[in-house]
Amino acid sequence: MEKRTVQSVTNPGLPGHQVQLGADQPLRLDCGVELSDFTVAYQTYGTLNADKSNAIMICHALTGDQFVAEPHPLTGKDGWWDLMVGPGKTLDTNRYFIICSNILGGCMGTIGPKEINPATGKPWNLDFPVITMADIVRAQAMLLDHLGIDKLFAVIGGSIGGMQVLEWASMYPERLFAAVPIATAAHHSAQNIAFHEVGRQAIIADPDWQGGDYLSQGVRPHRGLAVARMTAHITYLSEQALAEKFGRQLQDRDAITYGFDADFQVESYLRHQGSTFVDRFDANSYLYITRATDYFDLAGKHGGVLANAFKDTPVRFCVISFTSDWLYPTQESREIVHALNAVAANVSFAEIVSDKGHDSFLLDEPEFNRVLGGFLKGAAEHGGLSW
Amino acid sequence: MEKRTVQSVTNPGLPGHQVQLGADQPLRLDCGVELSDFTVAYQTYGTLNADKSNAIMICHALTGDQFVAEPHPLTGKDGWWDLMVGPGKTLDTNRYFIICSNILGGCMGTIGPKEINPATGKPWNLDFPVITMADIVRAQAMLLDHLGIDKLFAVIGGSIGGMQVLEWASMYPERLFAAVPIATAAHHSAQNIAFHEVGRQAIIADPDWQGGDYLSQGVRPHRGLAVARMTAHITYLSEQALAEKFGRQLQDRDAITYGFDADFQVESYLRHQGSTFVDRFDANSYLYITRATDYFDLAGKHGGVLANAFKDTPVRFCVISFTSDWLYPTQESREIVHALNAVAANVSFAEIVSDKGHDSFLLDEPEFNRVLGGFLKGAAEHGGLSW
Repeated sequence: MEKRTVQSVTNPGLPGHQVQLGADQPLRLDCGVELSDFTVAYQTYGTLNADKSNAIMICHALTGDQFVAEPHPLTGKDGWWDLMVGPGKTLDTNRYFIICSNILGGCMGTIGPKEINPATGKPWNLDFPVITMADIVRAQAMLLDHLGIDKLFAVIGGSIGGMQVLEWASMYPERLFAAVPIATAAHHSAQNIAFHEVGRQAIIADPDWQGGDYLSQGVRPHRGLAVARMTAHITYLSEQALAEKFGRQLQDRDAITYGFDADFQVESYLRHQGSTFVDRFDANSYLYITRATDYFDLAGKHGGVLANAFKDTPVRFCVISFTSDWLYPTQESREIVHALNAVAANVSFAEIVSDKGHDSFLLDEPEFNRVLGGFLKGAAEHGGLSW
Repeated sequence: MEKRTVQSVTNPGLPGHQVQLGADQPLRLDCGVELSDFTVAYQTYGTLNADKSNAIMICHALTGDQFVAEPHPLTGKDGWWDLMVGPGKTLDTNRYFIICSNILGGCMGTIGPKEINPATGKPWNLDFPVITMADIVRAQAMLLDHLGIDKLFAVIGGSIGGMQVLEWASMYPERLFAAVPIATAAHHSAQNIAFHEVGRQAIIADPDWQGGDYLSQGVRPHRGLAVARMTAHITYLSEQALAEKFGRQLQDRDAITYGFDADFQVESYLRHQGSTFVDRFDANSYLYITRATDYFDLAGKHGGVLANAFKDTPVRFCVISFTSDWLYPTQESREIVHALNAVAANVSFAEIVSDKGHDSFLLDEPEFNRVLGGFLKGAAEHGGLSW
């Protein structure tokens, strides 16, 4: 078995917590590689109570990070779940101790392909081992050990954050009281693998990708990464949202120009999404995390029967989907609910009516807030949490 | 007004018909440019009858061409509508005289960006004027003049071929007896513009695109064009079709490889779609034709009221959609039907149940064949066609 000692020299000046994990007990990845002494970057909000029973782990999505409820250090924009996390908000930091770590393979301080491989003194690039959603969760569990927290009150996440929630409930049922997988699925579909593959091929096709070794060459595959982001971004929105937000409206002009400039607002918007993304995200990280998502198949790991992933689970679940989400349609949430029902798990299920598509979980959706807040309140009562 | 004389030196050795049009009366494009003496390449199947009343024009889709019912000269594959067109088939060449021309801006013999600009002796590249769906149809009408055919029995087309059908019915109602727009829409939606824009940006991001001047440089933007094709191809299929055809099946391996090869069949399939496409299609043509599609908005040309495009129309319509087509969903066909109803047009409408997505019209769908065949039979009877 290959064993690697991983020293990480991550983003100098990156604010927040960074911790070295795995020095004594390495993280054994699904691919067989062992990672020891690697960095995980994380943020916390609120205060851990005396009996350490009020911790909530938030699992971020593909291009998210640990800066949940504070300005992003690179973009200066509000935290990605600022609407949800803070004093008096649905995830009330006066009550809960919120933890969010940058996922394994990420590019905001946690070990990933852009960090330094101690064996070579150069960035890992494609020598970084290919990771899985389970590996990502194993690293989060090691962070929890480091923080001295045996059991989480809840694990919550949307999109591939929801996949992490499902892995948490499956791998460590004794370490969480409640689980909230949002806008997610128990496996990545063929169509979704296809969209990811297009994004990866766009990156790999960019000559500045340099076979993955762009950091050593002082370049970055901006164009390919932007195209990957643009493609993915379409899948995060609904057809209705695009029609209502942009329709066929023109961008700063009264008539079409008979050219290839961004005549339409939707073109201008997409180009902006692509060009701003490349300033904050690493192309190789994009390859690794999309790959981990493609590989995710919880039933596949359990003899093809999803219910087996949750046998005898003591966890209380709240599964949430959105009507206009075509990346992870409600049907895929229902399959999770059916599997949980098959093992007589304690499960709530809500399909929220929204026309905003997959990204609904990041946006101001009052009904979503009410459902999540109500579930957490009930779980807190049952779990003996009080303030 | 700018007037350009366009001499075309198209694909040497390309089989089939090529004709010079516009020498006496140039084609005035929507952008204001006039094209004179330009090439249109076309194929015909069957025999024109004595009173020239049995002609059907087929309008091809974005990446289609005039080789409808014979092996493709570049790929050797069957004609793209071989299932539909031939002796005894739904579009029976024993009865009908079938015409299909490569569309303006295309790359199979008709004038387009890769042809020679006589003003410079070099390929037009981005100096080629930006065209519209109406311009494409105007060139088809000029071909009809050349063939001495006043009136078509029918114009038939799927996808952006269907947009051409709608333009035909709107611009030349007196020149067609019947119109069959299939799997199409009266305007290109924001989501569809977004997918096209991703494809264009993938091409433009490829350094081998060379600002559009790749032919002079002896290179071609294969990688960008392949990514564009891969993205578009996902939209041509349905989620169900991908799930049933590929699901999460692995490609020639028993387990995932923890790498970035095409582990999944759907990845391998998409890569193949991309790599074969670049052998037969021109990247700049892709830019121009997607742009013409984005610009298509039939209601927009008629005061925002689609019905105005068809006022007092004598044309008999058969509008056909497919249940699993998410590129041009049935709702968009219904809008066409409602507009036709509003002007009391003679219109049939059929939504065909199919799980194959947008590409259903290219595939073996017996119910689709029955509907189209039945409509044509009825139209022939009403139109006095007999054999």
